Amino acid sequence: MTKAEFPTPLPLATPALGEPYLLTPGPLTTSKATKEAMLRDWGSWDGAFNRVTAEVRQHLLHMAGVQDDSFACVPLQGSGSYSVEAALATAIPRDGKALVLMNGAYGQRATKTLEYLGRAFITLDKGDYLPPQPDEVDALLKANPDVTHVFLVHCETSSGILNPLRAIADVVKAHGKRLIIDAMSTFGAVPVTVDDIAFDVLVSSANKCIEGIPGFGFVIIRRSVLEAAKGRANSLSLDLYEQWVYMERTGQWRFTPPTHSVVAFHKALEQHANEGGVQGRLARYTRNRDVLVSGMRELGFRTLLEDCWLSPIITTFFCPEHPDFQFMRFYDELKTRQFIIYPGKLTQAESFRIGCIGQIDEYVVHQLLRAIADSLIAMGVDMRKTPD
Amino acid sequence: MTKAEFPTPLPLATPALGEPYLLTPGPLTTSKATKEAMLRDWGSWDGAFNRVTAEVRQHLLHMAGVQDDSFACVPLQGSGSYSVEAALATAIPRDGKALVLMNGAYGQRATKTLEYLGRAFITLDKGDYLPPQPDEVDALLKANPDVTHVFLVHCETSSGILNPLRAIADVVKAHGKRLIIDAMSTFGAVPVTVDDIAFDVLVSSANKCIEGIPGFGFVIIRRSVLEAAKGRANSLSLDLYEQWVYMERTGQWRFTPPTHSVVAFHKALEQHANEGGVQGRLARYTRNRDVLVSGMRELGFRTLLEDCWLSPIITTFFCPEHPDFQFMRFYDELKTRQFIIYPGKLTQAESFRIGCIGQIDEYVVHQLLRAIADSLIAMGVDMRKTPD
Repeated sequence: MTKAEFPTPLPLATPALGEPYLLTPGPLTTSKATKEAMLRDWGSWDGAFNRVTAEVRQHLLHMAGVQDDSFACVPLQGSGSYSVEAALATAIPRDGKALVLMNGAYGQRATKTLEYLGRAFITLDKGDYLPPQPDEVDALLKANPDVTHVFLVHCETSSGILNPLRAIADVVKAHGKRLIIDAMSTFGAVPVTVDDIAFDVLVSSANKCIEGIPGFGFVIIRRSVLEAAKGRANSLSLDLYEQWVYMERTGQWRFTPPTHSVVAFHKALEQHANEGGVQGRLARYTRNRDVLVSGMRELGFRTLLEDCWLSPIITTFFCPEHPDFQFMRFYDELKTRQFIIYPGKLTQAESFRIGCIGQIDEYVVHQLLRAIADSLIAMGVDMRKTPD
Repeated sequence: MTKAEFPTPLPLATPALGEPYLLTPGPLTTSKATKEAMLRDWGSWDGAFNRVTAEVRQHLLHMAGVQDDSFACVPLQGSGSYSVEAALATAIPRDGKALVLMNGAYGQRATKTLEYLGRAFITLDKGDYLPPQPDEVDALLKANPDVTHVFLVHCETSSGILNPLRAIADVVKAHGKRLIIDAMSTFGAVPVTVDDIAFDVLVSSANKCIEGIPGFGFVIIRRSVLEAAKGRANSLSLDLYEQWVYMERTGQWRFTPPTHSVVAFHKALEQHANEGGVQGRLARYTRNRDVLVSGMRELGFRTLLEDCWLSPIITTFFCPEHPDFQFMRFYDELKTRQFIIYPGKLTQAESFRIGCIGQIDEYVVHQLLRAIADSLIAMGVDMRKTPD
């Protein structure tokens, strides 16, 4: 899909002078319009702000394909991990048991969270980057009939893998178990709708594919699950049930909301719709990823993952084994050229990551590739030559 | 103190066309410069952002009079109540016992938080607005030697009372107990320094007297208390010990920070210093309060509190008993005149509140008083006449 095919042409952000592009899994480069929405103060008790909150919640439900009142959207102050913790504490009863599918930092964080919450769990640990396979999940659910919930990270940004959500959701459903999706880095760019994927809970945050400003996360959750969760939380601040009840009753956030971030997110949703919604964004990010990966391969870099597992969110590349390649030097060279990339998170091999999300398009990726080529020259790294 | 006596003249924010002043206990009206600091995206992993975080933490410690490494400043994502919860969970051991001094919503919220955390507590409940008295605290601590910690809200914004912090701190110290101060709405405008007030923990947030953007709170906490708190939290997200350890080790926030809010806060701190620090801000807010209270009394309004208990933060006024005075009508009349005030929180009497904090000065308060007079005329409420 070329840029000309976008439903509406997207006016891309021009970063301020001296402002780098953030090629990270978020916080990411946002549009000028989104940031400018923060040039105003809002009363958190006032009707005008309550309308912004209501529209945001409604729009997110719509994005998840919710057409009735079977699901609710509950935003929560804090980073995305706060929303994951709140969702786990809400969805899993104190006597429940989770199966956590792990292949990176965010699956690991979920197990840590469950330890704090005192919820029982087992894991399928696939290491740094291998995908959990549906037949493995099937076998584990057969062997552990007391498991009540399965937790899956849709895109593990620690490697960049897009995990096989649909196939796993089908297995979970066939076993009559409940699915909790950490869709932090995918929601808004990779389609997940309630008619297509059977889930109870989906968690995401403001500063990922919807291209908002960090400050809050949100949980899209089956209403019957919420209704059963009164008194289940062990934190006042992260009590998603109370947050929901209060918001339904008053239209307000229970505690002070990140007003500017909420209003910026509202603006970001408008731009998301204008770009063609989830499909439009997926097309742009996919194109970013394709241009990035092919350009990097031409430069001599290798991706960690086979093509079929590459997400349109972030890609991990191995550090070249050239003696003059040091990641921090590479990072600094790129930063002077206005690009901020991300360090790797692999335990076994030296790597780095480059994000495809945020207000960037293929032309920015072409600039990045030139900056990478220049950085390699500056470092004296020529990967087409065998090093001495 | 008149405006001309400020150490540095303060360029006040001109709200955008159609933007009201927020006369609330926060989120409040912030300066244009503070909001404009958000017109840029920051990588949360990048060294430039880490420097902003380090400077913010250092500046806050300095504001609390900390001159050595006996205290640490730990910022935490989320609203101020998240930081209170994290502070309580960190400072009070699982077998500790708190005495909560209550005279409003925030003391009450602390007891609710302690219930979630499973910490034992007793209360001194003074109802809607009466101050906890040092001799009452003394008697309670004598009668309950198993109490380990005392929790006090410095300014209870539900009534606007400035509680007698110093006298109570002296009693707590004399008993060898630990003091936890909820200084949410005072820190930065009412002096609290470690050499003057004996405390273990002080909690505040970005969007109060330092006039930042909501998104995070912060805890100023005795280092020895933090060091003893490993494994004490029952929430991963709100584990202040882990937040501190991670920040000390890496310079980064443990989970995604509200980058724009942090950078805006850094800018707000610069303006705070330029205004003369805590003393400069106290002078402006006090002047705002004095002009407000005398002007409102001239219009026929009565304050809830006697003058000696009035804070320079927010003031509660009784609704007039005039048959044509309805609060929501009054609110709307003032909103069309560009002022947003706050509803009352008293359980016994009809009231409303007007904040003195944020980017407003006495000239704005004079405009407000004219708007209030006009609103009363529009509502047909003349308090100098006896109603029919």
